Amino acid sequence: MAKEGADMTEETEYMIDKNVKKEIDNVETSGNAKEMRAVILSGFGGLNKLRVTKKAMPEPQDGEVKIRVKTCGLNFLDLMVRQGTIDNPPKPPLVPGFECSGIVESVGENTKGFEIGDRVMAFVNYNAWAEVVCAPVDFVYKMPDEMTFAEAAAFSLNFVAAYMMLFEVANLREGMSVLVHSVGGGVGQAVAQLCSTVPNVTVFGIASCFKHAAIRDSVAHLFDRNVDYIQEVKKISPEGVDIVLDCLCGENTGKGLSLLKPLGTYILYGASNMVTGETKSFFSFAKSWWQVEKVNPIKLYEENKVIAGFSLLNLLFKQGRCGLVKSVMDKLLCLYEEKKIKPVVDSLWALEEVKEAMQRIHDRGNIGKLILDVEKSPTPLHVFNPVFLLSPQPVAADGRPSLSLVLLEVSSCYKGVFPSHCHRKCLLIGVI
Amino acid sequence: MAKEGADMTEETEYMIDKNVKKEIDNVETSGNAKEMRAVILSGFGGLNKLRVTKKAMPEPQDGEVKIRVKTCGLNFLDLMVRQGTIDNPPKPPLVPGFECSGIVESVGENTKGFEIGDRVMAFVNYNAWAEVVCAPVDFVYKMPDEMTFAEAAAFSLNFVAAYMMLFEVANLREGMSVLVHSVGGGVGQAVAQLCSTVPNVTVFGIASCFKHAAIRDSVAHLFDRNVDYIQEVKKISPEGVDIVLDCLCGENTGKGLSLLKPLGTYILYGASNMVTGETKSFFSFAKSWWQVEKVNPIKLYEENKVIAGFSLLNLLFKQGRCGLVKSVMDKLLCLYEEKKIKPVVDSLWALEEVKEAMQRIHDRGNIGKLILDVEKSPTPLHVFNPVFLLSPQPVAADGRPSLSLVLLEVSSCYKGVFPSHCHRKCLLIGVI
Repeated sequence: MAKEGADMTEETEYMIDKNVKKEIDNVETSGNAKEMRAVILSGFGGLNKLRVTKKAMPEPQDGEVKIRVKTCGLNFLDLMVRQGTIDNPPKPPLVPGFECSGIVESVGENTKGFEIGDRVMAFVNYNAWAEVVCAPVDFVYKMPDEMTFAEAAAFSLNFVAAYMMLFEVANLREGMSVLVHSVGGGVGQAVAQLCSTVPNVTVFGIASCFKHAAIRDSVAHLFDRNVDYIQEVKKISPEGVDIVLDCLCGENTGKGLSLLKPLGTYILYGASNMVTGETKSFFSFAKSWWQVEKVNPIKLYEENKVIAGFSLLNLLFKQGRCGLVKSVMDKLLCLYEEKKIKPVVDSLWALEEVKEAMQRIHDRGNIGKLILDVEKSPTPLHVFNPVFLLSPQPVAADGRPSLSLVLLEVSSCYKGVFPSHCHRKCLLIGVI
Repeated sequence: MAKEGADMTEETEYMIDKNVKKEIDNVETSGNAKEMRAVILSGFGGLNKLRVTKKAMPEPQDGEVKIRVKTCGLNFLDLMVRQGTIDNPPKPPLVPGFECSGIVESVGENTKGFEIGDRVMAFVNYNAWAEVVCAPVDFVYKMPDEMTFAEAAAFSLNFVAAYMMLFEVANLREGMSVLVHSVGGGVGQAVAQLCSTVPNVTVFGIASCFKHAAIRDSVAHLFDRNVDYIQEVKKISPEGVDIVLDCLCGENTGKGLSLLKPLGTYILYGASNMVTGETKSFFSFAKSWWQVEKVNPIKLYEENKVIAGFSLLNLLFKQGRCGLVKSVMDKLLCLYEEKKIKPVVDSLWALEEVKEAMQRIHDRGNIGKLILDVEKSPTPLHVFNPVFLLSPQPVAADGRPSLSLVLLEVSSCYKGVFPSHCHRKCLLIGVI
């Protein structure tokens, strides 16, 4: 039986859980199909619900291509899938992941536009975190020659979402101003770059303080996520902003609406505030839900305001808008080839390191996109890596570590500059 | 003391109420200023609160022009002002009216861009329904030579509102579909015309059955206001529409949202359902308010929908967006000069006929805009005009009068084809 919580994390990170494997194989493997490695979510919950295991390799159906996956994107939404906090989640066991890049290995019947060997990126409705994925051609896009596989996995979801929010929903034009939460993340960096393609657009960004040095050039005004951003924005622009992009939800919805100029647009595109701990917290969920201000249309009329919701995955997989998304992708690939936009990759992780990658995004440690690199070997276990103790406040207000302790941690995760999972076994070696 | 309701309507329509006149003069006349005729709202309530009276003529201040008014626009909102059902109404007595056209008679100091004799149209924050109006130049626009004064008063508010909703808020583009309530009204007809300037836009319009013959060519699909329009639209377009423009409010908000395609935009720009009788009805008001669906942003996220409110007058007079409106007016005047749009004038009324004009808009009897023509003489009293009896259902489903009675009515109002104020003294002369 799988262990829970902190105990579990002492296991080898790329160990294949045989219990889960059996369970999955019983459900999904049929006959003598070839096998592939995949990340399996055995049930909703914490990191311990994720395992790399073998799974029957899919074969392309009519109108599908089979992709030998090189890289996959990891999004905050994947944490919510793991916890089961999304609307109508599919029944586990399942392979998470909504986007990948790779090489076309074969094509199904009646499949046009792609050939074996094509370098592609794709949206999939789950199943991306595997060595092989099959996807209908409507969701597959050829990669520019100069784009790396890691860039491709960092490109599709983030830039399409950012573009559609700015230009399809909010009608961004010259001289406007945009406030974006989590500007250090994948979508946030895409928003900042796309805003720079329109003259005189002012971007207000909110991000954890320790990211500011790295992303300062991408926005005009940068605020720490712990400050009262309403006051900070109003100091600079008393009238507010034209567009607010909010991936947090909760009380930020009312705050965002209050910051809008007349004819301004608030867009909710995520609910990361609903995720607090490793597992689903009904308290956080209920708090966020309760804090979301239900909007009276008559108030919008009086104030000349617009409120919108945007979910790219629903648009693609529930609402059948792949044609529109394709046209957006074409525009974005032009901008990429003109070198006006370039995806920001935070870090590459082996499939077996998915838990550490998820912890990093949970801790808002990333700048840009986290990528699962299918061909990457996992980091060797039991190396000693110096890290800083972070609890309870990762860094002081000036960006320096708040406690000057140097530790050696028994851990495989050395990627996070300030990982917050230092509740693991640590060995104090000195105070400096 | 002013009489109430039906009794009052027996008075001459252009009689100056001396009690009200004294009251107004005490409040507003100063010294030996010249006088002018104006429609005065002496208090919130029914038609009896309106009188034409003499009032001190305003003189232009710095940055203002003084306009000798030729025509004024009458909007549904003026009924709500009369009843006092708008948000934060000003204190009566007041001169209603938000738009007019006329000739510049003088200019204040530091007033640039206009000269005496210029033909202009203007937005004003009340006071339009008078022989003379002063307005800051930011709200005044020169009329094209070929535009009549009646067209100008029918142009400004309706076309600017329609344009901004379609292109500033909702981002109308080729191939989209639009549902518009009250398509026979001034804004509705402007929406239909503007939609025709974009390729392959499909307009679904809702209007009273008896208007259909007159407006059939302006929209692709026309529904009676009493049918279940959700079902009718879905029969033609199962996915719904891209844009819903709603001036009714109440239960139509939820219905409109449910009809949106993904990425579709619902815009609330009026609340005419709150007006039922001649005077403010708290029941209607409360019912409409209660029926308005408060919107959960998380639902918008799941469904990829946009909800907006639009109030041109708030935008102009509370939110200082006259620069943006000026740029919209410039675009509209180009379209007018290219003969792509042309305001639809329903009828012209003397200032003294404002009650009849209001009753006509209350009864949704108009096709296009109702105009107050300041230079027009009121219709002679006590003439016999044949009209049809309308109550309780104005016309049968096939568009013909539901009762074949011919009446002679003692009334000054012969303009309405189907006026519903036939509760006045009537003389039945035959059944045909």
